[in-house]
Amino acid sequence: MSESRIPAQDRIDVAQVGDALLGKWKKERLEARALAADPRLHTIPGQSMPEHRERVLEQLGILVEAGAIQRAYPKDLGGGDNHGGNIAAFQELVLADPSLQIKSGVQWGLFGAAILHLGTRPHHEKWLPDVMSLKLPGAFAMTEVGHGSDVASVATTATYDPETEEFVINTPFAGAWKEFLGNAALHGQAAVVFAQLITRGVNHGVHAFFVPIRTPQGDLLPGVESMDDGVKGGLNGIDNGRLAFDHVRVPRTNLLNRYGDVAADGTYSSTIESPGRRFFTMIGTLVQGRVSLDGASARAMQAALAIAIRYGTERRQFPGASGRETVLLDYGKHQRRLIPLLAETYAMTFAGDRLLTVFDEVFSGANDTDENREDLETLAAALKPLSTWAALDTLQEAREATGGAGFIAKNRLTGLRADLDIYVTFEGDNNVLLQLVGKRLLKDYAAQFKPGDRAAVARAAAAQLSDRADRFGLRQVGQSIADLGQIARSVESMRTPEAQRALLEDRVQTMIAEIALALRDATKGVPKEDKRARAIANEDAFNAQQTKLIEAARAHGELLEWEAFTEAVEKISDPASKQVLTWLRDLFGLGLIEKHMAWYLIQGRISGQRAEAVTAYIDRLIGRLRPHALDLVDAFGLGPELLRAEIATGIEQERQDEAEAYVAAQKAAGTWPVHEKELRAQAKAAEQAARADEERREPQNA
Amino acid sequence: MSESRIPAQDRIDVAQVGDALLGKWKKERLEARALAADPRLHTIPGQSMPEHRERVLEQLGILVEAGAIQRAYPKDLGGGDNHGGNIAAFQELVLADPSLQIKSGVQWGLFGAAILHLGTRPHHEKWLPDVMSLKLPGAFAMTEVGHGSDVASVATTATYDPETEEFVINTPFAGAWKEFLGNAALHGQAAVVFAQLITRGVNHGVHAFFVPIRTPQGDLLPGVESMDDGVKGGLNGIDNGRLAFDHVRVPRTNLLNRYGDVAADGTYSSTIESPGRRFFTMIGTLVQGRVSLDGASARAMQAALAIAIRYGTERRQFPGASGRETVLLDYGKHQRRLIPLLAETYAMTFAGDRLLTVFDEVFSGANDTDENREDLETLAAALKPLSTWAALDTLQEAREATGGAGFIAKNRLTGLRADLDIYVTFEGDNNVLLQLVGKRLLKDYAAQFKPGDRAAVARAAAAQLSDRADRFGLRQVGQSIADLGQIARSVESMRTPEAQRALLEDRVQTMIAEIALALRDATKGVPKEDKRARAIANEDAFNAQQTKLIEAARAHGELLEWEAFTEAVEKISDPASKQVLTWLRDLFGLGLIEKHMAWYLIQGRISGQRAEAVTAYIDRLIGRLRPHALDLVDAFGLGPELLRAEIATGIEQERQDEAEAYVAAQKAAGTWPVHEKELRAQAKAAEQAARADEERREPQNA
Repeated sequence: MSESRIPAQDRIDVAQVGDALLGKWKKERLEARALAADPRLHTIPGQSMPEHRERVLEQLGILVEAGAIQRAYPKDLGGGDNHGGNIAAFQELVLADPSLQIKSGVQWGLFGAAILHLGTRPHHEKWLPDVMSLKLPGAFAMTEVGHGSDVASVATTATYDPETEEFVINTPFAGAWKEFLGNAALHGQAAVVFAQLITRGVNHGVHAFFVPIRTPQGDLLPGVESMDDGVKGGLNGIDNGRLAFDHVRVPRTNLLNRYGDVAADGTYSSTIESPGRRFFTMIGTLVQGRVSLDGASARAMQAALAIAIRYGTERRQFPGASGRETVLLDYGKHQRRLIPLLAETYAMTFAGDRLLTVFDEVFSGANDTDENREDLETLAAALKPLSTWAALDTLQEAREATGGAGFIAKNRLTGLRADLDIYVTFEGDNNVLLQLVGKRLLKDYAAQFKPGDRAAVARAAAAQLSDRADRFGLRQVGQSIADLGQIARSVESMRTPEAQRALLEDRVQTMIAEIALALRDATKGVPKEDKRARAIANEDAFNAQQTKLIEAARAHGELLEWEAFTEAVEKISDPASKQVLTWLRDLFGLGLIEKHMAWYLIQGRISGQRAEAVTAYIDRLIGRLRPHALDLVDAFGLGPELLRAEIATGIEQERQDEAEAYVAAQKAAGTWPVHEKELRAQAKAAEQAARADEERREPQNA
Repeated sequence: MSESRIPAQDRIDVAQVGDALLGKWKKERLEARALAADPRLHTIPGQSMPEHRERVLEQLGILVEAGAIQRAYPKDLGGGDNHGGNIAAFQELVLADPSLQIKSGVQWGLFGAAILHLGTRPHHEKWLPDVMSLKLPGAFAMTEVGHGSDVASVATTATYDPETEEFVINTPFAGAWKEFLGNAALHGQAAVVFAQLITRGVNHGVHAFFVPIRTPQGDLLPGVESMDDGVKGGLNGIDNGRLAFDHVRVPRTNLLNRYGDVAADGTYSSTIESPGRRFFTMIGTLVQGRVSLDGASARAMQAALAIAIRYGTERRQFPGASGRETVLLDYGKHQRRLIPLLAETYAMTFAGDRLLTVFDEVFSGANDTDENREDLETLAAALKPLSTWAALDTLQEAREATGGAGFIAKNRLTGLRADLDIYVTFEGDNNVLLQLVGKRLLKDYAAQFKPGDRAAVARAAAAQLSDRADRFGLRQVGQSIADLGQIARSVESMRTPEAQRALLEDRVQTMIAEIALALRDATKGVPKEDKRARAIANEDAFNAQQTKLIEAARAHGELLEWEAFTEAVEKISDPASKQVLTWLRDLFGLGLIEKHMAWYLIQGRISGQRAEAVTAYIDRLIGRLRPHALDLVDAFGLGPELLRAEIATGIEQERQDEAEAYVAAQKAAGTWPVHEKELRAQAKAAEQAARADEERREPQNA
């Protein structure tokens, strides 16, 4: 079953598949990988937190020297105006040390990017050169102890004082301390602080302010307090901490005033009239972090599988009928554990490249429309949760699949998992993000109807729910009576990309239609005048649908991944590669359908018999893919300098070879001891032979 | 929706439920908890590995002084002959520091227990007093680099030399190094080494030998080599490492000879004739570790949920229609994340107590029959995988549900998760254990038929598979035609414990019957003489069923948990407690059915409509349980000295109160700024009113 038994012409073209995985920003990715191979940038397991923090600060300096962080900044300030390439390169840094990655993200992707995107030309000229050179390390002070995902409700205030033409930054209570900020505990000399802008007695909502917090010598400035978050579950190379401000005054011009400004006399002005839209435009730059984490997660998954699959093709356990011990990856369960994750990793890698393309269009200005921006937000909010969760699951499965060896830090799986743990709740809590996606799907659904025409919503939903099989051309797939005895044909019909797409799309659309229908009648019977009661009724109805809405958003994200995978397969020219990647895509698509099979069965989309056929076909696909597993991870292009896991170096194969040679030599020399079991078996056989002999003789005697 | 709104008489009796959770060995558990509250035994987050290792060694001394580790040893050697109580107390130590727990497990549960259970009286007298006092720290040298789960194949040899009456312990190649051994890198002065016993040219299989490895000063003895495993993903207070032996000689009497012995002249003897049975008897003592980890995992789950649920009832996020921000645990999704885990934690706690009872019967000798011993092995192999995995999932969900705060080490969730990670693959890899359970289920199934009567197996399986609804009285539950419009009644029928049990049992039995049927024809067409071909055919067939067999074993474990929960609920006398725990048990049972709904649908056990009703009823159960959530975690009895998580101390409630008081005071003083949004809304309303007014006037003017 191993790769060597496959004829060369049936094996994938590792280089071509590798290029597809590297995607649009291959050059930047390879540059970043070359950098990530530098031992000075690597994690040292067990390093103390203080040492790790200092090391990572030094590593940031190495990135500056290497020209690795300037890409996204304006050309005239020494940058490259290369937004997609910047994120692509950033994503690869996870292979060096996630602490280094995230601390550089804090400095250049959050702190610096906030000055760039929320500030104006004078801010750029004044601060960005020092931000880029790391002369000015800074924190991104958005989250508070009491408010994380709900940024609009942060309690820090920035009250304008026209007397002195200053903003007074203040932390009114303990819950308003800025929290979990990288660079806050030690290294930050300034912070971009998000606070409620109050002028002339009016709160104009959250705005960002540039606030100095420490001297270059590291002493806190008057009125600024800091607390160290101390040891964390991972990312201990970053000095996360809290910040509080006791009526700290900054000049009026420290307001990052791209979307809202205050004149010397205290008059507020903004190019965006609606406070809601203004807020969402300002925090829209956060999408960069989500895009970054999405791709970083896919790279961590690649590393995890490269390690576990390599080890799985070398390590042997339990004697097999063949006379040798069986290689782990030849066990059915081991294949079921790892090969579907390989399909998922491919899907997420391709989907990430698509997301990055949209990101680049928007941030480069090539296609910066409101619509594309909104699509980008939704795409990022759909993909980042799925890939960050998948990274944790994949690292864990790889850890378990490599047993105790996977638990040893030098094999990297536990360290990566510990560091990536927080990726699922920072830069947008995954469930909150999926809820955003769900709301967008509901909005798009409702947009088909006149505002307030609830009856139309109901009619459409009812039609979709009863007539659904027709609508998506699924009769053939879902039909159950014609199923009997036609398993082969029925699987055939599900194997087509059209059927997979129809089933995946149908699930999203039907769930959204059902939710819309459930929400429609929320305020039935509540008097129109009683706005509070109606609001509560709507909230309760929404709350009852929340789990389902999040599930629908996840289904939407899965569909996007499947589509990206399909698109990527279509571009592959090498026939063997195309064949193998088609199997892998089918495994991904049918794997999703198998995962949600209860839903398809309940909805009558798939019959029970066809459902069993799906599982049987998945098993066949996994068997077919097994011999290609090593090639498929080789295509990730992660050499030993990037994997840096002892068990992925071939050491296990050497040990297996040594052990087999030892036994063979002993046997050849006649010094290999016979086992008591064999002696007993021989004795038993001899006894039986003797008895049979006796029995044969007895009748003669009779 | 909070607890305070429930009438007192409807709330659970926390003390009574708490006693049920503490179970049979309440006294020992409370003693261990008192000990675990001692700050000297607590983890210090971020402590360096060398310091943590020394600290844990000192902590072991504290356990000795406290009389905490002697319970399982013979009374005449200063022990308590209390096997169940010993494990119960051990399980609670996870609340102090898992490193401390596992290192004490290495010393007294593995190294010491091997001398106790595999050795004989002279061994006990010679070594156990020093083992118990920690004067003699030791390693349990079973696993090798190349052989973990497959203990029978370890490659270390112990060859008897009659000339000197010694065993020669030898590590023939790199893969045979003993690996992952606690106490091997630093502190161990001896090891119980598992090696192939060879005498007179015959290998009698794996036996255990007492082998000194270091001087009391810590110097390795001649011929012994050690390597340090270094930093691990967790449990860094334990000095795991490798050991190798280069023809190290030990006296003949160092063979732990309870089940097999070698006379001075080299003659081998054993009370157990079959080498296979002898081997399984010897490694049977390993069950102790599995029982220990099972209960430790349940305690970690209790701690995780006590932290996350307490925080979830205090932390608020996003303004609600009520005018206040909404408490996390009032969100539908948050409830769906945590409350089913609460049900699972109860189930696993009760199942653990049942397992411990069987363990105590066997190890105390009260009921040490072959049958009970085999049941114990199966029970432990079924429950340990489920609870160790559930602990990781629960710690992770609690971490995510508490957001960034959950990632800070002082809130304990990440540290516990990192430490418990290895519980899923050590003391028996979870998948390997489940496979053992699956094989036992297949054996029991086959035992109904005459040996070799494959036709009977086929007939029975076919009957079960077609007639299955009848057989388990499931017609009523599974019927789909009669379902229409009877959702209420259909849920009613699934709510009974009888229906839940029938559905859970049916799944195990049907899966096993299907697997047996699939295995039956494996060698069809392969000539009887070709034993190798038949072995390979059987192996291939088994391999194709491996995933399903493991799934069947998991279903068996879930059934055992459900039964234990049901048994525990029956013993509760307080009516309100009984009601709430019945809901919780139903949530657990129906949650399992929902999780495996695709299977029930495919098998025709449950109709699509009834499946939807199950989910709807689960949602209702969760809503009912929400107000009891705090009481249900209070019943775990884990005070602040055991939880030691800042976010579970009420600090968030204090912050919320402070913030609300601040806002109220500002509003009262008239200094609370009006929000631009309100001004715009007011302006819009005024404008509309003015326009309406104008329109009203116009007709008059006309």
